[in-house]
Amino acid sequence: MIYADNAATTAMCDEAIAAMIPYCKQIFGNPSSLHTVGQVAKEALNDARERIAKLLGCEPTEVYFTSGGSEADNQAILSAAARGAKTGKKHIISTAFEHHAVLHTLKKLEKQGFEVTLLDVHESGLVTAQEVADAIREDTCLVTIMYANNEIGTIQPIAEIGAVCKARKVPFHTDAVQAVGHLKIDVRRENIDMLSLSAHKFHGPKGIGVLYARKGFPLVNVIEGGAQERGKRAGTENIPAIMGMAAAMEKACVNLEKNAAYVSKLRDKLIDGLLTIPHTVLNGAREPRLPGNVNVCFEGIEGEGILLLLDAKGICASSGSACTSGSLDPSHVLLAIGRPHEIAHGSLRLSISEETTEADVDAIIQATKETVATLRSMSPVWRDLQEGKRQYVIQ
Amino acid sequence: MIYADNAATTAMCDEAIAAMIPYCKQIFGNPSSLHTVGQVAKEALNDARERIAKLLGCEPTEVYFTSGGSEADNQAILSAAARGAKTGKKHIISTAFEHHAVLHTLKKLEKQGFEVTLLDVHESGLVTAQEVADAIREDTCLVTIMYANNEIGTIQPIAEIGAVCKARKVPFHTDAVQAVGHLKIDVRRENIDMLSLSAHKFHGPKGIGVLYARKGFPLVNVIEGGAQERGKRAGTENIPAIMGMAAAMEKACVNLEKNAAYVSKLRDKLIDGLLTIPHTVLNGAREPRLPGNVNVCFEGIEGEGILLLLDAKGICASSGSACTSGSLDPSHVLLAIGRPHEIAHGSLRLSISEETTEADVDAIIQATKETVATLRSMSPVWRDLQEGKRQYVIQ
Repeated sequence: MIYADNAATTAMCDEAIAAMIPYCKQIFGNPSSLHTVGQVAKEALNDARERIAKLLGCEPTEVYFTSGGSEADNQAILSAAARGAKTGKKHIISTAFEHHAVLHTLKKLEKQGFEVTLLDVHESGLVTAQEVADAIREDTCLVTIMYANNEIGTIQPIAEIGAVCKARKVPFHTDAVQAVGHLKIDVRRENIDMLSLSAHKFHGPKGIGVLYARKGFPLVNVIEGGAQERGKRAGTENIPAIMGMAAAMEKACVNLEKNAAYVSKLRDKLIDGLLTIPHTVLNGAREPRLPGNVNVCFEGIEGEGILLLLDAKGICASSGSACTSGSLDPSHVLLAIGRPHEIAHGSLRLSISEETTEADVDAIIQATKETVATLRSMSPVWRDLQEGKRQYVIQ
Repeated sequence: MIYADNAATTAMCDEAIAAMIPYCKQIFGNPSSLHTVGQVAKEALNDARERIAKLLGCEPTEVYFTSGGSEADNQAILSAAARGAKTGKKHIISTAFEHHAVLHTLKKLEKQGFEVTLLDVHESGLVTAQEVADAIREDTCLVTIMYANNEIGTIQPIAEIGAVCKARKVPFHTDAVQAVGHLKIDVRRENIDMLSLSAHKFHGPKGIGVLYARKGFPLVNVIEGGAQERGKRAGTENIPAIMGMAAAMEKACVNLEKNAAYVSKLRDKLIDGLLTIPHTVLNGAREPRLPGNVNVCFEGIEGEGILLLLDAKGICASSGSACTSGSLDPSHVLLAIGRPHEIAHGSLRLSISEETTEADVDAIIQATKETVATLRSMSPVWRDLQEGKRQYVIQ
């Protein structure tokens, strides 16, 4: 089995599992408890917070543990909105191809009277800092732009956007769920005010993430209750998962450059191989792109069919975001970069990792070629294209 | 070390750990992915949902996985409020000694124009179904009353309250975080519309819980994003924790009667032993009470001192809720049952489990006697009481 769906989720690394185990049964206390069992757990919590802060380039008190990236996105955006509303600032800038954790939260705010500007991400899947600057208004209370896209892997100029936001005194949040552990990030240097991350995207456990929020930024609670996380996130701290996340994040960050070099070489080989299939296009600019992300559209066929045939050949892939699979609508990301409906349906996302081998890549290319040929041989659309009754969208 | 703080959190049972492990690295897929690795994870998710539904007496589609009890409480209350607001019903009935996940959510709603009636829980720590019935108004959109109190362990007449709510067509939510796995629960029989539970209170993993919501009850999202949990709770499903929760819940429920009989016998012995200490009072009615809960106040001393001395003797205990420890205010629960400030500060909660032995109970009684004597010998308040310069609150 070749797993090429690491953008959906990853297998936990041994280091993360090993880091969790002692906190399940031995050091299991509630860190809010005053007794030794609780205080030992509290020390572990503090330790993990310090290690994660160091990896992000922030202070431990700026790290808030959440149940994952979606919760962190929700909290960041709602917090900036609440802060803005206090001074009548109700304009938010984002992009059309954010994750739904961002887009749906923005929809909710629109119903409450906020105005949202979704920047065009162009065919490249990239915005520029200048476009952000041009969109900023007197009443802008937040810029929220993802670090790297979860479907097409394009990487935004985050440091430049951060500099623009800093100069204009507009809070800047980035959904870095696909970036952390894969790209070098320093929240201070990049002038990021808030950042969301999720452990299971870098071989850490599921159900745990972080909201980084710059010191002094007023957070509102998504979950009300006890005084955990300095009163900003209620619920008994999930210490085993937090310890697993810290271990996985350290491993990913320590090996980041080595992994990125290795994985991006495989990625390039994969892209080149897939583009030899006629009437195939890469989605999003080739660079800057996540080391592990490949996303292509094939003319004349459907993504779901590709996935099922590839699966039968032992290859796990995706047509886009796992979070919206099952939906019959084409990917909002592919529509945002201007792909017409008829080819947006024929997408394939392959997200590889440092565990992928060159032989895996060869196998994926071969299997995809066969799959596309098989599906096209059965496709009435493809027949029409071949017979000149329809025009090719992808030349 | 004797751990008597199971109401704060529990050690994971081996069954829960064993149930999690395969889903960390082997069956690690995202259940939203169409490929085999994802679909196998989805089958596990469905299986866990069915098993948990069976234990609660509901349908699998009525089970929503959350990050824990606090999130479930928030979602239940906000959902009922949103439903009520649509028809102008903005009155909520609860009690004064709910968990802060409930009380703080109600405070948030009060700021949005909702009116909240907090029923008196009396010195017994109990409300009656009649009191609930008397408080219901035309505009009541929710009754939310905890199944069993987290500090003093008193168990409310949930089935009777459920019957009242059903007859009056008012949605009924119960925070059952302390009850599930310890008391027999059947949401249909008890006419519960929504129920919150948390796995780490019954030897399951932290960071995972359930909101049960009766079919057709319209939920609002606390976390917006992907379409997981039938669109009502975004974020990649935490399958390892869900599998661990299902295993722990099954174990707790299968052994429930046996454990309850064993633990409540120890509890009674513990209560009797502690009440031989002069000027000591049990908080909350002796029955109906959680099998593992003991909560007493000692006149003339402070809870924090008791905890630290007990900890030095190897006994892990609490003065009340772990979620609010570190706060200098006396427990809102003890104030709600009418304990004056001066004795509410001198509380001790011991929450034992089926892992507690009779020897442990003897040791706790002995250690507590010594601790109370030590602290009283140093207490100016106790000296004043002894010398008749102050009046005893506890006779």
